Amino acid sequence: MATEKKVEQITARDVDFAQWYTDVVKKAELIDYSSVKGCVILRPYAHALWENIQRTLDGMFKETGHENVSMPLFIPESLLQKEKDHVEGFAPEVAWITHGGGEPLTERLCVRPTSEVLFCEHYAHIIQSWRDLPKLYNQWCSVVRWEKTTRPFLRSREFWWQEGHTIHATREEAEEETLRMLNVYATFAEESLAMPVIKGQKTASERFAGAENTYTIECMMHDGQALQSGTSHFFGDGFARAFNIQFTDRNNTLQYPFQTSWGLSTRIIGGIIMTHGDDNGLILPPRIAPVQVVVIPVAAHKPGVLDAARALCARLRAAGLRVRLDDGDQSPGWKFAEHEMKGVPLRVELGPRDLAENRCVLACRDTGAKQTAPLDQAETAVAALLEEIQARLLDAARTNLRERTHTAASLEEMRHIAQTRGGFVKTMWCGDGACEEKVREVTGMKSRCIPFAQEPLGDTCVCCGAKTDTMIYWGFQY
Amino acid sequence: MATEKKVEQITARDVDFAQWYTDVVKKAELIDYSSVKGCVILRPYAHALWENIQRTLDGMFKETGHENVSMPLFIPESLLQKEKDHVEGFAPEVAWITHGGGEPLTERLCVRPTSEVLFCEHYAHIIQSWRDLPKLYNQWCSVVRWEKTTRPFLRSREFWWQEGHTIHATREEAEEETLRMLNVYATFAEESLAMPVIKGQKTASERFAGAENTYTIECMMHDGQALQSGTSHFFGDGFARAFNIQFTDRNNTLQYPFQTSWGLSTRIIGGIIMTHGDDNGLILPPRIAPVQVVVIPVAAHKPGVLDAARALCARLRAAGLRVRLDDGDQSPGWKFAEHEMKGVPLRVELGPRDLAENRCVLACRDTGAKQTAPLDQAETAVAALLEEIQARLLDAARTNLRERTHTAASLEEMRHIAQTRGGFVKTMWCGDGACEEKVREVTGMKSRCIPFAQEPLGDTCVCCGAKTDTMIYWGFQY
Repeated sequence: MATEKKVEQITARDVDFAQWYTDVVKKAELIDYSSVKGCVILRPYAHALWENIQRTLDGMFKETGHENVSMPLFIPESLLQKEKDHVEGFAPEVAWITHGGGEPLTERLCVRPTSEVLFCEHYAHIIQSWRDLPKLYNQWCSVVRWEKTTRPFLRSREFWWQEGHTIHATREEAEEETLRMLNVYATFAEESLAMPVIKGQKTASERFAGAENTYTIECMMHDGQALQSGTSHFFGDGFARAFNIQFTDRNNTLQYPFQTSWGLSTRIIGGIIMTHGDDNGLILPPRIAPVQVVVIPVAAHKPGVLDAARALCARLRAAGLRVRLDDGDQSPGWKFAEHEMKGVPLRVELGPRDLAENRCVLACRDTGAKQTAPLDQAETAVAALLEEIQARLLDAARTNLRERTHTAASLEEMRHIAQTRGGFVKTMWCGDGACEEKVREVTGMKSRCIPFAQEPLGDTCVCCGAKTDTMIYWGFQY
Repeated sequence: MATEKKVEQITARDVDFAQWYTDVVKKAELIDYSSVKGCVILRPYAHALWENIQRTLDGMFKETGHENVSMPLFIPESLLQKEKDHVEGFAPEVAWITHGGGEPLTERLCVRPTSEVLFCEHYAHIIQSWRDLPKLYNQWCSVVRWEKTTRPFLRSREFWWQEGHTIHATREEAEEETLRMLNVYATFAEESLAMPVIKGQKTASERFAGAENTYTIECMMHDGQALQSGTSHFFGDGFARAFNIQFTDRNNTLQYPFQTSWGLSTRIIGGIIMTHGDDNGLILPPRIAPVQVVVIPVAAHKPGVLDAARALCARLRAAGLRVRLDDGDQSPGWKFAEHEMKGVPLRVELGPRDLAENRCVLACRDTGAKQTAPLDQAETAVAALLEEIQARLLDAARTNLRERTHTAASLEEMRHIAQTRGGFVKTMWCGDGACEEKVREVTGMKSRCIPFAQEPLGDTCVCCGAKTDTMIYWGFQY
């Protein structure tokens, strides 16, 4: 008989949220650390989660007319430097290749921190006329930014993402695209990940390097910190001018085209963990969970139990569900804890007494509630419960967002909220970067976004008191 | 009226095969060159082809129990050096990162040329007991090898691939896995890509750096050169010893586990091009083609034509086919040439006369043959023709392989074949590396593999005349 490895305890969220997070990513077997700081290994469970995210998002990108490409990993130093704002934003945090094949390179290459300049170089090759526009491209890859402090998923030197890059004949079309893809992210976050979002526009100081405008979806974590979860950038024709990308329009006149880019990364996995997890570990939304249902035979040595569990799994799979049978030799109690740690949304228990009564036991990961269902209606019962769990997770996250969103009319009030409760603080803001900086100095909070859903909280800036009709979100950030 | 871009001519294969290849990859819009030598851009059409390859292979990997992971991009110099043979093979051709975030690194990092050492470091963390074995992992990523001469797909500094890495409790199990995955590659190449393969074992001098044994699938291109199209390596316990990976077996004794790795890359796209293409451009096997059927309306301005073409596309899509409607304003002739260049297996033409007669015209890319089908039976006719094309491509490639495979009993005979006909040369071989080297010097051909399907061609080595019962394939290689 094999010795039974105990499922180890994790730190409670209220005791130390950061340690709870670290415990979960390790003990749910999401990541392992490599010997290069800030570079992690996505283990099979995290990778399966990322594959589900990829499959869903990739489908949404293709439905909106986008095509995948793969760009090179390397950017020559001179190419990175072509757009002034862009290089200022990224050059300080890139990794440099100086030698290849045993010889020093004539020009340093950086590992892409993002691929705008590579797309621009390519556009210049392939775009001549209005007939070549738009190009609606996306790539799935990893990028490298040499961060000083790192945390798995949230901030790492290498991370996996998709970066969409599009180029259009008109400013209006590019602006539409920028918002269309922000909405794709918002829909995906809410419908697939059960993560409610605040959609809005970044302030000038928080814009992507080289962008005219950056839009964001901001999420609220369980510890009251904000997570920027996806961004969409409008570049105007700035990159086109820097890279001399031009096309002849229908009147045979040379024009500069307009560009966008938009990205969502494995950081979102950190968001899923911190939105839904509890003191027993991960909780994964059913629509994105690698394993939606785990079937655990109880008293598996008794005649018929294992066969019945296998048959049930086969039926659930045939119904289109992602199912795992845990027929290992650990005790049911160990298995319950293990799959709770891994956040499997629904557990099905099946033992001799259940078989005798032609039923199975269903346990929801989020509430811990158990119920029975007739064995011959298991598919329907399981599918319905998964939908309920998905809806409950979104509701709970919405409640968390609502309860952690505060309103402040003065800097002092805002400072008090920041110190005592965290979360989002909504205020009016005059639009001046000096006020934004002062708010950060006094409260520690940075601007999150100017939300599309504006609320009339007053008519004066929280900081300087100037007249304004602009409302903004602030928060501590990951 | 827009000016019509002519489909440009490509070099004929018989005139200059290398130039034909370069023309095809550019003009079928598979790749674009970046400003970094040897690093190309996979354009949407090539990427869609690669995605189909990925989807099929990934499914085969999962069916055989493998899980995907993602490993870091970087390998510290000290980690690369842990296995002596491995570092000797790869260190001369890696790219080195020396600076990150504006500072010199304390230890150089190379961009992974392959990930054995990263997997080994991870295995050492996660494997303690027999219960942790086997681990059957795969990753999809790009790797970097600083090649001196480069050609798109065939030899590039960055290329995309999958690398499988597995670790097992016993030698036998690892050996089985090595051959299982070679067979997966062979099945995939023949069934999906219509590329017949020679399966066999590499000679000692051609083994992967650090492997006890390397198996390969070798394909014959249309110009008589061989293409190594997928390899599977058995490592014994050499890496486990170098990285101190140990597990306690069921008797509580410490043991070293056994490893494999296996890879197939975007090089296979070069293989598809050079196996099936003709002087009009690409020919893609239907099972893997991004577009299986292009529907081209003829006299599209005539009433009903465009609507009928759209309706036909919808029906073909509903039948599970990958369909494109080309409703652009170019002439049908231009479109025919364009989709021939891109290798779309089947073209459907639909004009007013066809509609009047309730039929459509079907043109096969490989033969150029046209036939008509009743419009209301288009799905069946199209699906059947695609199967026929797939089978014909495999037959044609088999014929090419057979016609380009020769037998030689002496070095002089072999030299003559090498100079006049190329292709594969089958001979007997004593197994001595010195003979292998002499054959290469005299004929220019390198050993391809010792095939599993041995044939009794004689009983003496083609080079030294020593007694032997081993048969080997030789060839010029890409």
